[in-house]
Amino acid sequence: MNPPALAITKRIRSTPFSSRVEDFGVIAYTVYNHMLLPTQIRGVEADYHHLRSAVQVWDVACERQVEVVGPDAARLAQLLTVRDLSSFAVGRCGYAPVLDDEGRLINDPGVLRVADDRFWFSVSDSDVVLWAGGLARGLGLDVNVSEPDVWPLAVQGPHSETVAAAVLGDVVRDIKFFRFAPVAYRGHEMLVARSGWSAQGGFEIYVDDAELGGLLYDDLMAAGAAYDIGPGCPNLIERIEAGLMTYGTDVTREHTALEAGLERYCSLDADIEAIGLAALRQQRATGLTRRLSGFMIDGDAVPHNRDGWDVAAGGNVVGSITSAVWSPRLQTNVGLGMLPIEHTTLGTTVEVAVPGGTRTATVVDVPFPGASQR
Amino acid sequence: MNPPALAITKRIRSTPFSSRVEDFGVIAYTVYNHMLLPTQIRGVEADYHHLRSAVQVWDVACERQVEVVGPDAARLAQLLTVRDLSSFAVGRCGYAPVLDDEGRLINDPGVLRVADDRFWFSVSDSDVVLWAGGLARGLGLDVNVSEPDVWPLAVQGPHSETVAAAVLGDVVRDIKFFRFAPVAYRGHEMLVARSGWSAQGGFEIYVDDAELGGLLYDDLMAAGAAYDIGPGCPNLIERIEAGLMTYGTDVTREHTALEAGLERYCSLDADIEAIGLAALRQQRATGLTRRLSGFMIDGDAVPHNRDGWDVAAGGNVVGSITSAVWSPRLQTNVGLGMLPIEHTTLGTTVEVAVPGGTRTATVVDVPFPGASQR
Repeated sequence: MNPPALAITKRIRSTPFSSRVEDFGVIAYTVYNHMLLPTQIRGVEADYHHLRSAVQVWDVACERQVEVVGPDAARLAQLLTVRDLSSFAVGRCGYAPVLDDEGRLINDPGVLRVADDRFWFSVSDSDVVLWAGGLARGLGLDVNVSEPDVWPLAVQGPHSETVAAAVLGDVVRDIKFFRFAPVAYRGHEMLVARSGWSAQGGFEIYVDDAELGGLLYDDLMAAGAAYDIGPGCPNLIERIEAGLMTYGTDVTREHTALEAGLERYCSLDADIEAIGLAALRQQRATGLTRRLSGFMIDGDAVPHNRDGWDVAAGGNVVGSITSAVWSPRLQTNVGLGMLPIEHTTLGTTVEVAVPGGTRTATVVDVPFPGASQR
Repeated sequence: MNPPALAITKRIRSTPFSSRVEDFGVIAYTVYNHMLLPTQIRGVEADYHHLRSAVQVWDVACERQVEVVGPDAARLAQLLTVRDLSSFAVGRCGYAPVLDDEGRLINDPGVLRVADDRFWFSVSDSDVVLWAGGLARGLGLDVNVSEPDVWPLAVQGPHSETVAAAVLGDVVRDIKFFRFAPVAYRGHEMLVARSGWSAQGGFEIYVDDAELGGLLYDDLMAAGAAYDIGPGCPNLIERIEAGLMTYGTDVTREHTALEAGLERYCSLDADIEAIGLAALRQQRATGLTRRLSGFMIDGDAVPHNRDGWDVAAGGNVVGSITSAVWSPRLQTNVGLGMLPIEHTTLGTTVEVAVPGGTRTATVVDVPFPGASQR
């Protein structure tokens, strides 16, 4: 019996790059922000090795941009995130958790300050456009909130700069990490950021013209031929090794930004008006009761993790491992999961209910050794 | 080459019924409200015939409930929908479009008045919890907005009442169309509504206990054995014949409730405070420029419709057919699409760009003849 197929319909939006990814033979898709996102191009392990050694073009059009523009844009943008945006000049981007009043995660986007009065929240898998729009409506702000047609295309891997420069010009070499700049391509300017959801380095190109995006995809492929370029996608092994959590999998609306381990993106002592900031300060004062942690899991390769696995200590279920996979490089299983704070000391061992039997897992620091080659 | 599989991970939430659907051999899933929704159990045509002749149990857990509760619940619920809720007594449910200030569709949920100060919006595929939560926060309303763990299970088809009564008692026979009541099952009360996303009749059971939901599923299957009961799901042929549009496919945030053909659920002349109502009144005054319509499409079976097909009139692209499929009962292709108002007169013919060649389509009334057997 075959595994269930994904029924691709108009509601599960295709991207300007879908036909190219499918022509290559994409193995598996997920759905992210009501849009197709490849998850396996050649297979998870083959994609992992290729990403770390060559260069990949990623169809991450599902990273939807929520645009906040207008006289009250800066106020709304700051309300939306507990990261202090007062120092964000035009051309800067960064991770900016969006929380509710209890400090729980609504989304963990990146934010780009596109102009003084224009912000893009590059969102993970929830409809931030509705949260921001509802807030703006309720508060009567003079701001426009929308989801413009922008389809990010990422170039990731050790040869990403060489390939991006060949197509977009040497100007991209000057773009610093978490900065972006308008770059001309075939007479059209698009924003290009040095960023991406891997630890291998690269760029995200904010394609705002579908037809041009297809040409760009092909130009990148041609320019990267000498570097074994190929399609890619966020990779399960690589992202766990890098300690990159997934919203919806490792953390959800149930968890605060501090529990998710995002404290360095939370401006807890800033003098800003941001939803959730008071709750985080309160949680800092009273102390965390649980926290996302990294794990090594004993034994041979664990099976596919679909629902989270119970973690037990002293015979009681105390937490859950939410992402796990075999690392062919580290020759062990690597994982992420939420545990009570008293079990998160590095080196602590717990029991994990993996299908087929109980395993021992050890709490370890993330990123895993060698996750980034830069 | 196999079609791309769906990568099932924790973010694509499984339901209390997924294991049962998969044991049966579900062919295809979609993702809806970040959750698995079967789209083909035996194949679209086989599912269609089975739904119309027997009885099916549908895993529609993806119909998430957005709960609005508290002193300001009635005010927020009414703000959220242009349907006049003042006449909605406890125990009544109904279609209740949720719009933005321009009258465009944010969602097309059903609403249940669970108590005087408690409403459930049973939502289609967008995060209404964020829209409602943002509004409540911005307006400073005394209300709690959440998405409780409720996983609807539907029983649909001509024998649905017999089977539901066998498991839940004859009390369900007294539930009128678009009404619901608390019904005891194994000592636990769950809301049961006479409703569902087919024209074949049946119930939606608002399961709020996952373990009990599994038992209920099995009890329904056992009780329906004599009626050829089996798993089912919303069916493409059946829903087009019934004229049921899909939010995200046939209409989107680009379209107003009037353009979507939902005027009978919009209380345009009611004295209520509802977001989008003023825009709809304005649109009624100036006149619609486009409207969702039904179509018959000439020729043999059209291929799978993934992205919408251009509709041309007089050589110009004027609209799009967004859903289409072969009806084995009507022996023609049936479809839905958005056309300029001047082309929506019944009997108008247009040209449709179907993969493989142009077809002639005729505007027809929906529901299609015989869609409902009741």
